[in-house]
Amino acid sequence: MNILYDERVDGALPAIDKAQLLQALQARLPDLDILHREEELRPYECDGLSAYRTTPMLVVLPERVEQVQTLLKVCHERGVPVVARGAGTGLSGGALPLEKGVLLVMARFNKILHIDPAGRFARVQPGVRNLAISQAAAPHDLYYAPDPSSQIACSIGGNVAENAGGVHCLKYGLTVHNLLKVDILTVEGERMVLGSDALDTPGFDLLALFTGSEGMLGIITEVTVKLLPKPQVARVLLAAFDSVEKAGRAVGDIIAEGIIPGGLEMMDNLAIRAAEDFIHAGYPVDAEAILLCELDGVEADVHDDCDRVRAVLEKAGATEVRQAKDEAERVRFWAGRKNAFPAVGRLSPDYYCMDGTIPRRELPGVLKGISALSEEYGLRVANVFHAGDGNMHPLILFDANQPGELDRAEALGGKILELCVKVGGSITGEHGVGREKINQMCAQFNSDELTLFHAVKAAFDPSGMLNPGKNIPTLHRCAEFGAMHVHMGKLPFPELERF
Amino acid sequence: MNILYDERVDGALPAIDKAQLLQALQARLPDLDILHREEELRPYECDGLSAYRTTPMLVVLPERVEQVQTLLKVCHERGVPVVARGAGTGLSGGALPLEKGVLLVMARFNKILHIDPAGRFARVQPGVRNLAISQAAAPHDLYYAPDPSSQIACSIGGNVAENAGGVHCLKYGLTVHNLLKVDILTVEGERMVLGSDALDTPGFDLLALFTGSEGMLGIITEVTVKLLPKPQVARVLLAAFDSVEKAGRAVGDIIAEGIIPGGLEMMDNLAIRAAEDFIHAGYPVDAEAILLCELDGVEADVHDDCDRVRAVLEKAGATEVRQAKDEAERVRFWAGRKNAFPAVGRLSPDYYCMDGTIPRRELPGVLKGISALSEEYGLRVANVFHAGDGNMHPLILFDANQPGELDRAEALGGKILELCVKVGGSITGEHGVGREKINQMCAQFNSDELTLFHAVKAAFDPSGMLNPGKNIPTLHRCAEFGAMHVHMGKLPFPELERF
Repeated sequence: MNILYDERVDGALPAIDKAQLLQALQARLPDLDILHREEELRPYECDGLSAYRTTPMLVVLPERVEQVQTLLKVCHERGVPVVARGAGTGLSGGALPLEKGVLLVMARFNKILHIDPAGRFARVQPGVRNLAISQAAAPHDLYYAPDPSSQIACSIGGNVAENAGGVHCLKYGLTVHNLLKVDILTVEGERMVLGSDALDTPGFDLLALFTGSEGMLGIITEVTVKLLPKPQVARVLLAAFDSVEKAGRAVGDIIAEGIIPGGLEMMDNLAIRAAEDFIHAGYPVDAEAILLCELDGVEADVHDDCDRVRAVLEKAGATEVRQAKDEAERVRFWAGRKNAFPAVGRLSPDYYCMDGTIPRRELPGVLKGISALSEEYGLRVANVFHAGDGNMHPLILFDANQPGELDRAEALGGKILELCVKVGGSITGEHGVGREKINQMCAQFNSDELTLFHAVKAAFDPSGMLNPGKNIPTLHRCAEFGAMHVHMGKLPFPELERF
Repeated sequence: MNILYDERVDGALPAIDKAQLLQALQARLPDLDILHREEELRPYECDGLSAYRTTPMLVVLPERVEQVQTLLKVCHERGVPVVARGAGTGLSGGALPLEKGVLLVMARFNKILHIDPAGRFARVQPGVRNLAISQAAAPHDLYYAPDPSSQIACSIGGNVAENAGGVHCLKYGLTVHNLLKVDILTVEGERMVLGSDALDTPGFDLLALFTGSEGMLGIITEVTVKLLPKPQVARVLLAAFDSVEKAGRAVGDIIAEGIIPGGLEMMDNLAIRAAEDFIHAGYPVDAEAILLCELDGVEADVHDDCDRVRAVLEKAGATEVRQAKDEAERVRFWAGRKNAFPAVGRLSPDYYCMDGTIPRRELPGVLKGISALSEEYGLRVANVFHAGDGNMHPLILFDANQPGELDRAEALGGKILELCVKVGGSITGEHGVGREKINQMCAQFNSDELTLFHAVKAAFDPSGMLNPGKNIPTLHRCAEFGAMHVHMGKLPFPELERF
């Protein structure tokens, strides 16, 4: 279903002679795997956001850095855009290919180069799976903390490109907080190292700038991540509430108590029922909302914190607070949460996953607002999310085969993200902007800010050949998007017009 | 003593008619405090790095953001460079004025605007003192974690500009890890907000890029910092060693054990004796090195960790391990460390404080290297530093009145920083580059990397009017600096010429 495809980016690109480019690449890189036939290209037409699809012109599967260097040089000389892709699990279309571009698949860079237990870091290639790092570090009682739901499949290079989060990032930070160094190639194929093995690096913090830049500033060829000691114990509490607002308030109360849980997740009734039907996690299906609160660390500390959190939850009006009685039950509680997306997927032919982030204190009000919007648009919304961070994942249920439903889902999604921006939040927490949220960026930033983004992009990639059309909208695009809103009577967010 | 003054930056700037500029500013900003007489300007001729001095052309002391906006506009129209200054405690000359520039003193922006206990953040003006934030948050049992030694005096705006650290940043991170949002003015006086109240912001991470950018990308007008709950208890262990290498190795052993101390500091014999003479902290004066290891958190956890750290220290060959028996002794142990710099200052007419950072595993080797260099240059070096981060502060003792000693101290300092870079570290951990380490940046980065820094600078400040001559050296300067090294037979670091 190619319906959401945005032809504007490809349309603006210059025509490229595919046969000539293929010939040039084959001549310069005789040992590079290049896919060019329609049937070979098909598997690469989308990433985890499958509503957006484009067939790439060519797909290349290099195995050595030198191949990527030469590829970039050839493409740069000929003005051919390059879109990098890791495992293709991204949820915002960051690795959506271009009809007039090369898709650079880094999946074969899958070696763990070095684990340093004393220095507590790992040097890995970008195609290494997130979970594989923790598995390789496990013999040293170490692990890599950020844990996106897709961690069994997603690659560390993609994690860096999208600044991935996960259940545990409330306590342990996003990808950017768990990196020491990234080796990159510039758009012209020059090697560069951002960050260092030491605590800090002088000059501007290009490592942080690069993290989350969605393949627009360079190609990642190696990543050095920090490793953390595995917590001695982990315990999880499940609290049930008779309203989502109460559950939302309890989240703030726990944090205000000075406790930082390893994970603090929320699910509403629709999500609870879906997960329970699917996984039989033992969730209370009559609750309007549940919170899952994991506490990890040393035994005595965790024991103490469990008591304090239980007291907070009860005071916040929980109708029930249960502690997983053993490791098996703890794993079952989490299995329900981790499978909530596919579980909700069983309720409806299609769903659309949002990723707004808001200040924690706004949770009760925003949950109420989403519920009102859901009614207004006549589409069910399930809420499953990283409550501790204020990182929401409303899942909008729809049926693409019903005329108008997809459009309504998209419009509702946009409204939810705009609500997030309105209360001081942002349009993405961990999934990135990609192609999906490019219009919402116009609500998040004003034209001075977008101009600055473009200037920073130009510092790395003056010709704009790396992943064009993602992450940062053009001012022209925002003018169009803004205009759509103006005809409804007023600007989308007068309070954003503050400059 | 104007000896270290580098006239090249001022020399390259265009001539400015001081009287005309003063008149223009007085006309546009009748209520702005402007200092212009020699005797008024004198107090501002240096920051905490007093070996470098320049009398600024004008000093302005605004109190409102609108004044700063107008000032920037006037200066931008006339091509007058602007150097921002907070409390002036910086140790790398980042706020060193220009003879042909305006010094913009932000000290009067000293209001705490809002403390949010539930959201655990504080909104403050840039001139607010670091410690004042923790004091204001104390009634809510919260505090602001980064704690530079100068925290009683230094301002949060300066902390952001230099990405300041401190004793506790091993566990709680540098300034960049403790920020939510920074409001800035661009070189043209436009308002812009970097970051947000939520966990993450889409687009490029300009907040991290800005942090530590040393006044080169914009002027800070407001800072939103994260607040942390105060640890329930803190205990400190003091371990004595008969060699610095053994103490260095013990640092790595503690971290490898999976413990993250609140602080992990090292002092060598020269520093121990100096501090003991000055503060009477109860240090073992015959030890070649001591480690101070603070553990903080909840009671049971800390008790457990103290036992584990003691075991590690004993196994690493400590000749003595002592736990501060009460809060008074804990404070005394830290008083010795926190006053070590002034204490060492009593041993010698002058000292020069370095700030190199190295991977922890390199500590024993680098300490040995520093000792060899100290002998070679005939100057004593005291070591007092954040061992847990690998952030070293060698203090080079010299007498500026002895012919040649200052030059020798500078040369020795350069050698020590180059040694840090050689083992994979960096030339600054928390003091910044400023004017002081601008030449060493040429050893840290190659010309492709420096070019990228300049392009990023140009994205924010195309005319180069914000704090010119600091932080990022010109390629021309590096060519000169490199040439000095080539005449000794070979390039400083052939391994850095890897591209």
